[in-house]
Amino acid sequence: MRRPVRRRHPLRDRLHEIIFESDTPAGKAFDVALIALILLSVMAVMLESVESVRMRWGTALRAAEWIFTVLFTVEYGLRLYCVDRPLRYARSFFGMVDLLAVLPTYLSVLLPGAQYLLVIRLLRVLRVFRVLKLVAYLNEASLLMQALRASRRKITVFVFTVLTLVVILGSLMYLIEGPAHGFTSIPRSVYWAIVTLTTVGYGDIAPKTTLGQALAAIIMVIGYGIIAVPTGIVTVELSRVERRVSGQACPGCGAEGHDPDAKFCKYCGSAL
Amino acid sequence: MRRPVRRRHPLRDRLHEIIFESDTPAGKAFDVALIALILLSVMAVMLESVESVRMRWGTALRAAEWIFTVLFTVEYGLRLYCVDRPLRYARSFFGMVDLLAVLPTYLSVLLPGAQYLLVIRLLRVLRVFRVLKLVAYLNEASLLMQALRASRRKITVFVFTVLTLVVILGSLMYLIEGPAHGFTSIPRSVYWAIVTLTTVGYGDIAPKTTLGQALAAIIMVIGYGIIAVPTGIVTVELSRVERRVSGQACPGCGAEGHDPDAKFCKYCGSAL
Amino acid sequence: MRRPVRRRHPLRDRLHEIIFESDTPAGKAFDVALIALILLSVMAVMLESVESVRMRWGTALRAAEWIFTVLFTVEYGLRLYCVDRPLRYARSFFGMVDLLAVLPTYLSVLLPGAQYLLVIRLLRVLRVFRVLKLVAYLNEASLLMQALRASRRKITVFVFTVLTLVVILGSLMYLIEGPAHGFTSIPRSVYWAIVTLTTVGYGDIAPKTTLGQALAAIIMVIGYGIIAVPTGIVTVELSRVERRVSGQACPGCGAEGHDPDAKFCKYCGSAL
Amino acid sequence: MRRPVRRRHPLRDRLHEIIFESDTPAGKAFDVALIALILLSVMAVMLESVESVRMRWGTALRAAEWIFTVLFTVEYGLRLYCVDRPLRYARSFFGMVDLLAVLPTYLSVLLPGAQYLLVIRLLRVLRVFRVLKLVAYLNEASLLMQALRASRRKITVFVFTVLTLVVILGSLMYLIEGPAHGFTSIPRSVYWAIVTLTTVGYGDIAPKTTLGQALAAIIMVIGYGIIAVPTGIVTVELSRVERRVSGQACPGCGAEGHDPDAKFCKYCGSAL
Repeated sequence: MRRPVRRRHPLRDRLHEIIFESDTPAGKAFDVALIALILLSVMAVMLESVESVRMRWGTALRAAEWIFTVLFTVEYGLRLYCVDRPLRYARSFFGMVDLLAVLPTYLSVLLPGAQYLLVIRLLRVLRVFRVLKLVAYLNEASLLMQALRASRRKITVFVFTVLTLVVILGSLMYLIEGPAHGFTSIPRSVYWAIVTLTTVGYGDIAPKTTLGQALAAIIMVIGYGIIAVPTGIVTVELSRVERRVSGQACPGCGAEGHDPDAKFCKYCGSAL
Repeated sequence: MRRPVRRRHPLRDRLHEIIFESDTPAGKAFDVALIALILLSVMAVMLESVESVRMRWGTALRAAEWIFTVLFTVEYGLRLYCVDRPLRYARSFFGMVDLLAVLPTYLSVLLPGAQYLLVIRLLRVLRVFRVLKLVAYLNEASLLMQALRASRRKITVFVFTVLTLVVILGSLMYLIEGPAHGFTSIPRSVYWAIVTLTTVGYGDIAPKTTLGQALAAIIMVIGYGIIAVPTGIVTVELSRVERRVSGQACPGCGAEGHDPDAKFCKYCGSAL
Repeated sequence: MRRPVRRRHPLRDRLHEIIFESDTPAGKAFDVALIALILLSVMAVMLESVESVRMRWGTALRAAEWIFTVLFTVEYGLRLYCVDRPLRYARSFFGMVDLLAVLPTYLSVLLPGAQYLLVIRLLRVLRVFRVLKLVAYLNEASLLMQALRASRRKITVFVFTVLTLVVILGSLMYLIEGPAHGFTSIPRSVYWAIVTLTTVGYGDIAPKTTLGQALAAIIMVIGYGIIAVPTGIVTVELSRVERRVSGQACPGCGAEGHDPDAKFCKYCGSAL
Repeated sequence: MRRPVRRRHPLRDRLHEIIFESDTPAGKAFDVALIALILLSVMAVMLESVESVRMRWGTALRAAEWIFTVLFTVEYGLRLYCVDRPLRYARSFFGMVDLLAVLPTYLSVLLPGAQYLLVIRLLRVLRVFRVLKLVAYLNEASLLMQALRASRRKITVFVFTVLTLVVILGSLMYLIEGPAHGFTSIPRSVYWAIVTLTTVGYGDIAPKTTLGQALAAIIMVIGYGIIAVPTGIVTVELSRVERRVSGQACPGCGAEGHDPDAKFCKYCGSAL
């Protein structure tokens, strides 16, 4: 996990260890504090959008926001200071997220009404992943990604089939139900077909005619049933990835697929 | 993937390569352009059904429609020209879809008000599969189809059980809730039972009596639970199909589909 | 599949073959005709409950009902005639269903207004299973049943956990939201919790307070996530049942788990 | 399952056997009676919250409540009497639940209006688990717990991804739809995103703009698809746990958890 950096200053080395790594007590404490800070600041942004809360605690929330911003700015500065190639860090995905976490507050001084800028601060929630990235969860996430990547073609076929289904079934419903029952256009009917196929079912648009309800019933049963397909795909792929990762080959007979805690080959008994 | 055609004219050969295959740069470019064209034309048909859009950009959309139609017609002609047996192509499933993609626009000149014809143009979306068919996705789709075919009997048993459940539970609800609470007939009650069992839950019809709500709760828990059955079926079948495909060939008889831990061919007994 | 019956009369034997078995052309034709008849009669009962249809085609439907009833009665009589132990058949599950399929129509002459009796006729839909029971689907259904039976304990633990969750979370919501927001009693709140946990979501009752919505969000995420548990249970059990069924033991090394088409042991190469 | 207790009094021993164990007829009868009592008392508490029932049978329900409370109190006393370390039992999780099952009724004499206290009685439903705990279901439950524990890291990654998705997509919807369409604040929009992603779909808040409906459609498809991830995780883990449990013990070192096709112990290399 440790990036091979040339270390020159003991202070920078120490800071790098605390900020970027998590195998020292100080590093762990830093990570926990950072996650708490991120979650608090996200919660503050969310609460600020509730009118009744803004009326009452608006000033307090704005003060808190500035405190968070200053802390994140200091952190961003320290990160820039203690990595070997600051530019590369600044241009990386998480470097951008770190910058976007502080910029909107500063810009809001110049452009007071910019509601959109404030929402960008919610991207801070992504920073949680940068912290997790440094610890043991990375491994698990990468297994999941591998399984999803290995099944991306099957998933593409599946998604295309679903899209074709909703376009064709949605426009059929447009012909059957018509604008009088809320199916005012094909895009809206396709939207309804997606709401139904994914079993969300808002009920803001619902078929009224008998033929429409019969077709809707068919869409529901299809939607209910084909969820089995992506589930099957991911399960099979995940089980294969797990087996591959955990298996070293036996030096005696070449067999693979040994459990991670195996000390001897289960087929020929040679030591692994 | 390449159909064994007797080639006579270099131009025809070249065209066949571009239109029907995708292993040359020109063939790939053709496929990508065709997919883009198909998606654009589908989007245009969908947008035309939105009244506010039709008011504003109606003329532009109709012009675009004619451009798409002419391009697809040229493509259809070229396909007919460069295959060896044009009639067989014209009668094939994708030949019909290719024709249905252009016919409605021409017919709409003769029968101006025919809204239904216009919707047929949406079948163009199926043409995406004909393009995909020619590339590597075919393999994945066929694995999925194999798994679904292998489990078709179990799925039939499952679908029949679900249909029986919704008929019996739906008519029970008709007796319990009655027309006063929206359950006006048995077909409508069965429709409600499908909406509930598949966990769609529009809420346009919902039980009001205590007994009805108790029965509805049971239907929901059943629907929530039995989704596990098709998922299990497809997963097991998919994992078996995958294993069969990934196996090595037997040096003795050439049979495939051996388990990863097999040491001897299960058909002829040769060592693998 | 063939019950070991002592045959005495050639006519009875022939009838038994046609009615109870499906390996002769006549037996197959009988099965297909019976399924068609069952589905038609179920459809007629369902249509009769729609008021507008009853107004128009009421007489025709009642006539059809009598034709179906007479045909089913003849079939019931023939079944009684050609089995060896008529009483045992009459008392069996499917014997009762066969009787319930005809009784209500006769009783409706004596008790004209008995709507409940008419709905009992819908149990005819169960007769489809008696036909399916005789053909190859039986095997698949029994595999599914085996898998479900093998996992019944795990499923019981799961169902109890879900019931405890909805009772506790439902009564919490009763305290939080209260009668003013539609949560008028604990049973109703538990009903709402089931609607939410199973991801049905009618929307007839929905939390209005912030705290209620937060708790509802937690229930949703739980419901969305724990569906993985029964799915996992059934998948694992189904895959084990499949393996057990298809596997005979090797006479050479005793290994099990061979594919159904295996001719030689994959571990030691002995002929199976 | 049997706790190694020093037994001194034959009566206490006998009581311990009946109350805490279930391998004698008396112990089994006690368990069944207790489960029935628990379910009845839970049902009484639930019914009491329905106004129309309370009006009519209020006195009867209160009488029943006192009978249940006295019985549970006697049971609690007996449990305290017949375990070796009463304090340790009283402080254990189920000891607390046993106390909470009786306390609220006594307290309601002192604090008559305390509705909250009454609802605490519903925690009695947890006592069902204490009974189940003593029988064979324990094993199955522990398998499920093992599988869930083994996959807790992957599930954490998944839950964090879902939370990030709903925060970002929810605040996007807040910007797109705005307070006019019911998306009055970011927390409310996030609540809507959870309702949609988990495919619950109440319909109390639903997007009205075209852009909002397009984004909602994307959220639905994501929610419909990623359910495959936890399902795959749990299935793979459950199948691994099952395999480990069903394995035979090594004659060399006694280790368990060998694969069904293992010929040698993976820990010490002895032949199995």
